[in-house]
Amino acid sequence: MQEQVARVSLGEIQRPIAVELEEIVAELRRIIVGDFPIIAAANEHLLRMKGKLFRPTLLLLSQRAAQVAEPRATTLAAVVELIHLATLVHDDSVDHSVLRRGMPTINALFSHQVAVIMGDYLYSRAIIELVNLGDLEPLRVFGRVTNEMTVGEMRQLEAHDRLAYSEEQYDQLIRAKTASLVSGACEVGALRAAPDHRAALARFGLHLGMAFQITDDLLDYTQTEAVTGKPSGLDLKEHKVTLPLIAALGRMTPAKRQLVVRLMETPEPSDEIVAAVIRAVEAAGGLEYARRRAQGRAQQAEAELDLLPPSPARDALRDSIAYAVDRRS
Amino acid sequence: MQEQVARVSLGEIQRPIAVELEEIVAELRRIIVGDFPIIAAANEHLLRMKGKLFRPTLLLLSQRAAQVAEPRATTLAAVVELIHLATLVHDDSVDHSVLRRGMPTINALFSHQVAVIMGDYLYSRAIIELVNLGDLEPLRVFGRVTNEMTVGEMRQLEAHDRLAYSEEQYDQLIRAKTASLVSGACEVGALRAAPDHRAALARFGLHLGMAFQITDDLLDYTQTEAVTGKPSGLDLKEHKVTLPLIAALGRMTPAKRQLVVRLMETPEPSDEIVAAVIRAVEAAGGLEYARRRAQGRAQQAEAELDLLPPSPARDALRDSIAYAVDRRS
Repeated sequence: MQEQVARVSLGEIQRPIAVELEEIVAELRRIIVGDFPIIAAANEHLLRMKGKLFRPTLLLLSQRAAQVAEPRATTLAAVVELIHLATLVHDDSVDHSVLRRGMPTINALFSHQVAVIMGDYLYSRAIIELVNLGDLEPLRVFGRVTNEMTVGEMRQLEAHDRLAYSEEQYDQLIRAKTASLVSGACEVGALRAAPDHRAALARFGLHLGMAFQITDDLLDYTQTEAVTGKPSGLDLKEHKVTLPLIAALGRMTPAKRQLVVRLMETPEPSDEIVAAVIRAVEAAGGLEYARRRAQGRAQQAEAELDLLPPSPARDALRDSIAYAVDRRS
Repeated sequence: MQEQVARVSLGEIQRPIAVELEEIVAELRRIIVGDFPIIAAANEHLLRMKGKLFRPTLLLLSQRAAQVAEPRATTLAAVVELIHLATLVHDDSVDHSVLRRGMPTINALFSHQVAVIMGDYLYSRAIIELVNLGDLEPLRVFGRVTNEMTVGEMRQLEAHDRLAYSEEQYDQLIRAKTASLVSGACEVGALRAAPDHRAALARFGLHLGMAFQITDDLLDYTQTEAVTGKPSGLDLKEHKVTLPLIAALGRMTPAKRQLVVRLMETPEPSDEIVAAVIRAVEAAGGLEYARRRAQGRAQQAEAELDLLPPSPARDALRDSIAYAVDRRS
């Protein structure tokens, strides 16, 4: 994770498992098939909004890096994406989001009701598929992880309008909301590996997931919109408190802090006040602090990989760290 | 299920398993415990609105009637109630209901967001608990059942404003929405029984669940409210098409049918038009038809019990049929 690491694309990372990855969408389609019209329509829509398959990628690479045979890898990789998808459908419904991956969300395209039921449908399909594999271990990991994710969602509700929100609370939030499933993906890929390899990959996924989410939250402050050329500041507009703001608040002048208070008290903050708070957060070192935290997590993730034997898959996992912290979107 | 069967109370039915039932709430509390404040508060509220424990009752009686040892019975009975609870929390959120068992719903007391997340929390806790039992069979039954219930919820969305809704569609709806979990409760109680006893109890639960839901839908037409002394007709007010209406529509005069069309086209129908439609449904024999259907299912349920050895638990299951179809609320 040194500065000289070249930016890697997800395509490069996925090269060792490109063949398996191509099967994931067909496998996902098989698992979620439903003959009821609304379900079939929602399924087609979700399969079209297919994302980057980051979690299946990590599961498949972890399996390779652990150097164990895993005939169920394709199914398990499809299930981890399915669980992610079920979570997104409920998250979008809870957040009233209208767009996801550039396409309308289920709650926007159908209704809020359909979104709640559809999330339950997808999740129970994942359970059925895991039962059919005839092994309690993947169910144990994913059961724990999905429960942690719901606690993360509850924490997320709390992380609004709260200038007293601490870094410790933020860490607990992103660990539950994001890092738990990333860790679960890596661990489930290595279920048949030696216990110390399985544990190393679970910890790798945890640190990687933390780095990934901190970077996500940073991008909200730094990523410029195509049209305006300015940072979107979407989290600030929605009064979400993330690490750059938490870190900056402790170092701001009272005047700048008052600006943040004003933003949080404004139901729909203007672009001007959002831009002013972003500048204040940057000036107080909030972005730099968050970047250092992401780099720290990246180094911890990398250290875990040293416990695995060298392989192209391990190299790809190392590249996935660079991808997680260096990506621009 | 003859007319001369005396009305039985749930308390009488629960007598053979009264000791085990007393442990259910403590077991439920153990399973759903959460230290995050919103979760702890929602849990306490849900434990206070504890219902009649009809599904745990059926699970425990089925286990007794199958005459097999089942050391996990208390946990399994708590889990079936937990799954029921998780479903209610999401259903109330989807339906925007404000009251359940005379208490505010989670969506009313907290928020719609908390209700969606809380349902997911409870369901994933059920999965974790089933995994901890170390047996795939309860997971197989409850995984299938909960998926069927989501399809039932989708069907429910369709059963609005649709005068062409058929009895076949209604049967599919209530089988998925209600009968599947009742059947699952009975089957899971008998997991360690001989396959033919397990299958008989699963079918018993299916017919019982159908009879239970038809009776529920009938009560909406017949049950008088304490204050007004008139039927509530809540389903009609919400434009829900259930069996009494489906049966009556085919036998109504065009004028009465036009009345139903008018009700369905009125966003908030008056008490007068609801009362007029209820009278029209009764006059066309819709209530009588639905009663016969419920009785038919009750007889089918009773026939399945003949496949089990005589026992007090089997007698109690027989009484549960009378309870399901004769209850007044």
